[in-house]
Amino acid sequence: MTGHLADLGEFGLIRAITARFPGGEGLLVGPGDDAALLAAPDGRVVATTDLLLEGRHFRRDYSSGYDVGRKAAAQNLSDVVAMGARPTGLLVGFAAPGDLPVDWALRLADGLRDECAEVGAYVAGGDVSSADRVLLAITALGDLGGAAPVLRGGARPGDRVVLAGRLGWAQAGLELLDAGADGPVELLDAHRRPSPPYAAGQALAAAGATAMCDVSDGLLADVGHVATASGVRVELRAAALDVAAPLRAAAERLAADPLRWVLTGGDDNAFVACLPPTAPLPPGTRLVGEVTEGSGVVVDGAPYAGAQGWDHYPRG
Amino acid sequence: MTGHLADLGEFGLIRAITARFPGGEGLLVGPGDDAALLAAPDGRVVATTDLLLEGRHFRRDYSSGYDVGRKAAAQNLSDVVAMGARPTGLLVGFAAPGDLPVDWALRLADGLRDECAEVGAYVAGGDVSSADRVLLAITALGDLGGAAPVLRGGARPGDRVVLAGRLGWAQAGLELLDAGADGPVELLDAHRRPSPPYAAGQALAAAGATAMCDVSDGLLADVGHVATASGVRVELRAAALDVAAPLRAAAERLAADPLRWVLTGGDDNAFVACLPPTAPLPPGTRLVGEVTEGSGVVVDGAPYAGAQGWDHYPRG
Repeated sequence: MTGHLADLGEFGLIRAITARFPGGEGLLVGPGDDAALLAAPDGRVVATTDLLLEGRHFRRDYSSGYDVGRKAAAQNLSDVVAMGARPTGLLVGFAAPGDLPVDWALRLADGLRDECAEVGAYVAGGDVSSADRVLLAITALGDLGGAAPVLRGGARPGDRVVLAGRLGWAQAGLELLDAGADGPVELLDAHRRPSPPYAAGQALAAAGATAMCDVSDGLLADVGHVATASGVRVELRAAALDVAAPLRAAAERLAADPLRWVLTGGDDNAFVACLPPTAPLPPGTRLVGEVTEGSGVVVDGAPYAGAQGWDHYPRG
Repeated sequence: MTGHLADLGEFGLIRAITARFPGGEGLLVGPGDDAALLAAPDGRVVATTDLLLEGRHFRRDYSSGYDVGRKAAAQNLSDVVAMGARPTGLLVGFAAPGDLPVDWALRLADGLRDECAEVGAYVAGGDVSSADRVLLAITALGDLGGAAPVLRGGARPGDRVVLAGRLGWAQAGLELLDAGADGPVELLDAHRRPSPPYAAGQALAAAGATAMCDVSDGLLADVGHVATASGVRVELRAAALDVAAPLRAAAERLAADPLRWVLTGGDDNAFVACLPPTAPLPPGTRLVGEVTEGSGVVVDGAPYAGAQGWDHYPRG
């Protein structure tokens, strides 16, 4: 479909977008009424929301509409999985300038739909408005299937710290794009579109994780939240963190420290969990540290000296 | 608390805001983890989301932070009530410039909390980011308590069209503010902060409403959605629509047509429902028309010639 949003009108845009969203099991009332209705068989509902703003979380010259849709959905679906739940539905607040190409918005919808399909969830509803820059406000819902939620505050000394997924790839990709680099392409793509290891995250919950979160602000910041909430110390081992070949290549290209990306880079939506010492490590996960008595996070026994992750209002 | 958001930092702001939100029955995990967890005793969950953007939906020189919090919550809670459900929780996406006064953000939080308290709901979680202008993305959840959802598509010829709440007040208030007028103050306040008649909306559902929606885009637009979804015609009677004294006073002041405000003004979050002919009218509601065979919406037997409500992407 060609043209700009202003050509379609608000209701035309809503019709065009919602036509791309399939219905499915558990989606009892989909887009088009005052509200959606979703199954919540557990009798409780997990709910999380995230903003994704053009110029802050993505740039249209770096990412396609489809990329942004995948990323916006992934970011929220991974929060649901980090609670030990199965994602069920997504609500999408979308605002954009009237001169946004219609195709960009439709591909965004495709990206949302396809990322939902990875976990068996559906786009259930949303809201459309106009704004000077594209903004997305996504809410994801999920069902615990009778299980206890996996919170940040349950880690105990003796637990093992276990990771599923990539770290630092998205941040390295962003810095490469900022530098005008055209590769390594797998890092550029990792910035555009994370690949949360949903199945491994669900396996960590099923294995009895005492605490879990998705890594969105950076490993140190996010395990720091676990350490604080649980009243424990988290001891990471740098050698156990995988500094993958593309990260080493990018670090060379940018004269950067790849371990900084791994420890502080956000937006890969990996899962980090604490497992009781006797629990087996699920496939696709690796041991990266231990939980001990104390507080804070250390890497190889010492506080990490680099940047600590992302603050939207850095203090002057 | 004085100072600006940039002085607090992102996590300081989150702590200051969430400290103002009480926990409560049904809020099983509140702000601070990857996601919230709420009771959904019905086994289904109603969910709706709305964006509220500075410069489009509110202006900081017209409305206080507290006003915007009340309005943002009301807009979403009324969508839940329009489904025939009891609101349970709110998720809040909030972005603002670093020079926003902290007190503005804290009063916003108070407004969200107080509007939730009107219906027994709680702020369950959210997300904070930075943006050039204030933006709010609210999601409201609700529980049907075993009842069928009241959709837009159930109206049948012979039903009566019943209204609860004010119409046109918010739009008149906005036009007064735009004109620099200092009254009637009840209209200015109606723009700043709607007063959805939640109890009457719930009573309409309990009385057996075949269709219901909240009036957010304007009466003609919103009953138009009911007419389309139900495959019926809605016949409104102008004399039955209350053109209240403040509207008449404002219309005189602005040389405007008060009926246009009543028919097309949005943002009052009144409820309009279709009731079977035998159902008694709940207290606080009034009869404003009938459902007949056909299509579209007529006022006193003819299509209304004025503007049809609000489109975020008006076609050129």
